[in-house]
Amino acid sequence: MSVIKLVLAYDGTEFHGWARQPGVRTIGGLLEEALGRLLPEPPRLSVAGRTDAGVHAEGQVASFEAPEDLEPERVQRMLNGLFAPEVVVVQSGRAPDGFDARHSATGREYRYRIDAGAFPSPFTARFVWHHPRALHVAPMRAAAKLLQGEHDFASFCRATEAPTSTVRILRRLAVSSSRSRLEIRAVANAFLHQMVRSLVGTLVAVGEGKIEAGAMTQILAARRRAAAGPVAPPHGLTLVRVAYGRR
Amino acid sequence: MSVIKLVLAYDGTEFHGWARQPGVRTIGGLLEEALGRLLPEPPRLSVAGRTDAGVHAEGQVASFEAPEDLEPERVQRMLNGLFAPEVVVVQSGRAPDGFDARHSATGREYRYRIDAGAFPSPFTARFVWHHPRALHVAPMRAAAKLLQGEHDFASFCRATEAPTSTVRILRRLAVSSSRSRLEIRAVANAFLHQMVRSLVGTLVAVGEGKIEAGAMTQILAARRRAAAGPVAPPHGLTLVRVAYGRR
Repeated sequence: MSVIKLVLAYDGTEFHGWARQPGVRTIGGLLEEALGRLLPEPPRLSVAGRTDAGVHAEGQVASFEAPEDLEPERVQRMLNGLFAPEVVVVQSGRAPDGFDARHSATGREYRYRIDAGAFPSPFTARFVWHHPRALHVAPMRAAAKLLQGEHDFASFCRATEAPTSTVRILRRLAVSSSRSRLEIRAVANAFLHQMVRSLVGTLVAVGEGKIEAGAMTQILAARRRAAAGPVAPPHGLTLVRVAYGRR
Repeated sequence: MSVIKLVLAYDGTEFHGWARQPGVRTIGGLLEEALGRLLPEPPRLSVAGRTDAGVHAEGQVASFEAPEDLEPERVQRMLNGLFAPEVVVVQSGRAPDGFDARHSATGREYRYRIDAGAFPSPFTARFVWHHPRALHVAPMRAAAKLLQGEHDFASFCRATEAPTSTVRILRRLAVSSSRSRLEIRAVANAFLHQMVRSLVGTLVAVGEGKIEAGAMTQILAARRRAAAGPVAPPHGLTLVRVAYGRR
């Protein structure tokens, strides 16, 4: 057996997220089922970012164990033939033994797009959150700076069942703007469930003057979801890339 | 009565074009029906570019006669409330007496986008023609230059019933490229039916080496649709703007 690594881009609009669930259309479920035609049984895909319903990806990474004689190019051709352009295999190749898309990943980068203009654009509506209210970028940047670093992000995490660690290293949280468009980049070793959307929703509340930038320190310390701002909608979010370099 | 002028952006993917037709969803039909709620009866919209099924618009212009007391802002609010982001009224205002979106227009600008990369992008697939073959830009530019100017474009027109003039002034036909993306801009006083897509399909055939750039002169002279290259698919095409200046 060897490991095949796939780099994927997808429009998440019509999916109930990545993770296989009975009775609904998910990206992971779709791919696993299709791969089952090439393998003795459908593989279990390991994935770097378990994107939620409506979230997109430009550089998602998934991996699975496959027989030595299965050519990665054949996998790519078959999957693209079935699912492009909604889901596109951008790269397909053999990975070193022991590679696992999820556990080997050392960093994830997400981008969130906001359009604060008066009217939405028909051309970006699927990938950009139209939020037609003036946002003050300077306090958003000040808040983002306070959130960067190694923190317990429990306040920015959807309540989970398992009592696992909610400490993450947020390496970068940057707000850029051009006319009425805003872009928020978030880079971390890993993200908690709905963490990027919680960070974005909180930054937007800061940009609207509803939360003070300086409040970030208390919000982090509270370790309660209710302390932070609302969760931004999924469709503005895209997983841009996954890093496998040195930690 | 006065004239209201609307500037519209739309994603044409799910429409059977602009022109009202029984039993199918068209942009004009949808808007006329909705406007009928504000007026004694549904108006007849005059439109600058009768876009075909699957063609998009960033700056389409439509106009209709309305009572003096109907506020253009109210029209905009209602239509955007019903149809945004698929169809967006970007501007709505009163136009001078005698203004007619179609007959007053002195120029139209279209953009056609091509992606010649190996894989389509899930994010632009609705608005860009994915045509994964190398295109040679230099001969495409040479061909475009020969097509510019005042010509009988019968070879680039879908056969029409009415024997009207097929002479148009193609003010600009420009090919630009960046990595694997190509963009073709076409500006004319007016366009014949499927003219931009016929020009693009012919330029692509030139870029593939199937037609010589120099053959444009003979293709124009032939005045037969069969003389030109194939018609490019509709989804790469967008009506960018309409001009109402001096002719």
